[in-house]
Amino acid sequence: MKQARIRYQGEDLNVTVDNQQRICLKDGTTLTADQVTWLPPASGTIFALGLNYADHATELEFKAPEEPLIFIKAPNSLTGHRQVSVRPDNVEYMHYEAELVVVIGKTARHVSQANAMDYVAGYTVCNDYAIRDYLENYYRPNLRVKSRDTLTPIGPWIVDKADIPDPHNLTLRTYVNGELRQQGSTADLVFNIPFLIEYLSAFMTLQPGDMIATGTPKGLSDVVPGDEVVVEVEGVGRLVNHIISEQDYEESLK
Amino acid sequence: MKQARIRYQGEDLNVTVDNQQRICLKDGTTLTADQVTWLPPASGTIFALGLNYADHATELEFKAPEEPLIFIKAPNSLTGHRQVSVRPDNVEYMHYEAELVVVIGKTARHVSQANAMDYVAGYTVCNDYAIRDYLENYYRPNLRVKSRDTLTPIGPWIVDKADIPDPHNLTLRTYVNGELRQQGSTADLVFNIPFLIEYLSAFMTLQPGDMIATGTPKGLSDVVPGDEVVVEVEGVGRLVNHIISEQDYEESLK
Repeated sequence: MKQARIRYQGEDLNVTVDNQQRICLKDGTTLTADQVTWLPPASGTIFALGLNYADHATELEFKAPEEPLIFIKAPNSLTGHRQVSVRPDNVEYMHYEAELVVVIGKTARHVSQANAMDYVAGYTVCNDYAIRDYLENYYRPNLRVKSRDTLTPIGPWIVDKADIPDPHNLTLRTYVNGELRQQGSTADLVFNIPFLIEYLSAFMTLQPGDMIATGTPKGLSDVVPGDEVVVEVEGVGRLVNHIISEQDYEESLK
Repeated sequence: MKQARIRYQGEDLNVTVDNQQRICLKDGTTLTADQVTWLPPASGTIFALGLNYADHATELEFKAPEEPLIFIKAPNSLTGHRQVSVRPDNVEYMHYEAELVVVIGKTARHVSQANAMDYVAGYTVCNDYAIRDYLENYYRPNLRVKSRDTLTPIGPWIVDKADIPDPHNLTLRTYVNGELRQQGSTADLVFNIPFLIEYLSAFMTLQPGDMIATGTPKGLSDVVPGDEVVVEVEGVGRLVNHIISEQDYEESLK
């Protein structure tokens, strides 16, 4: 089962998506992907992992961390499937990051690794873009790198946990204008999903709808206005996004 | 004018507080501070400044930053006036941080310093506690230091901007069990309020109810279960909090 949030005829709606990728409204109407505006499928706190694939840490010439490097992303950075992300003027390097996102399903406090999966509702996909020019320290990236408006496309939907028997064996891929640029597997996570839930819930109460973006493997490269960027997590979803210039974005808001 | 949020007879209510500190409900009822549970007065994104008073940066043997050091705090860390904050077992150093908090009043995007104050609704007070044991890097404190449940008391209320003619000339004080431990002035902010609003709104859309905790001056010291900690910002408010052990906190949740 896939659950999504869309805007349709001026209303924000919770919908399901069937195996033919039809969008099913509660009143029985079905719509196609082209007929709706896709919204982020959850709205809780967004936790993001830095350097959670050893190969990516090596790519950045950084040692893999001994405890999870987690930062919080601002909600203004979220956008939905098929939306645009803005590349700022006068920067040299904007990179994509394909990530598996865990969505929390019930209030989690002092949860052990053994029970952690009981607290997962399902999974979605995000593209955790970064403006590398502003990264003065990999330790925990600053807001100019990671929390800019539109810089976290997420979706298209949440796939139920039951539909993903092993979330630690999924292929992630990023395509830029159809060309494969990044490929990895969640088998290579430094800190896996039960570990992260135990770690966070030891000192923070996690709420339904909170999201944990689990980090990205190696294979980053620059993207520019006009590029179509697709991130895909096997069995979870394929998230499409387009890069736009500041000027075109401002025009689109008028 | 002071606006607050309280829980009373099982309901969460928006109220005003008059000059005699009476809590005024919309139906005309007035209550005293003892009759209610105080909630955080706003619920947007919480931005917090690191090292935004030069004397505090010196105290930590750290150079004042060249651009604002800003991190986001998780909403689970927030608690209200007169509530408790938990000191974890087996740590050596939990310190208070008295801070002036700016509350955003309207959607802010690409705002100049000259116009920034138009986007401020008012001010509140927070105590941005930190567990120093877990601080492995001052750069942007990790979640175990700064986003633990109950570690950000905030309130009691929001004072209207109109009632604070100069927010850059307010005395901040922290008292532990009645003894003055920390004192400073917002005159010593490294990055002032208009600067911070211009800086953030250049790349993030700020929303009504978002909060900017502007940092703390020098004078930090350890607090332990049983301590009463009061942080006070001149003209804004006096926020009372008690430190509790993990065991007593777990008991209180039963």
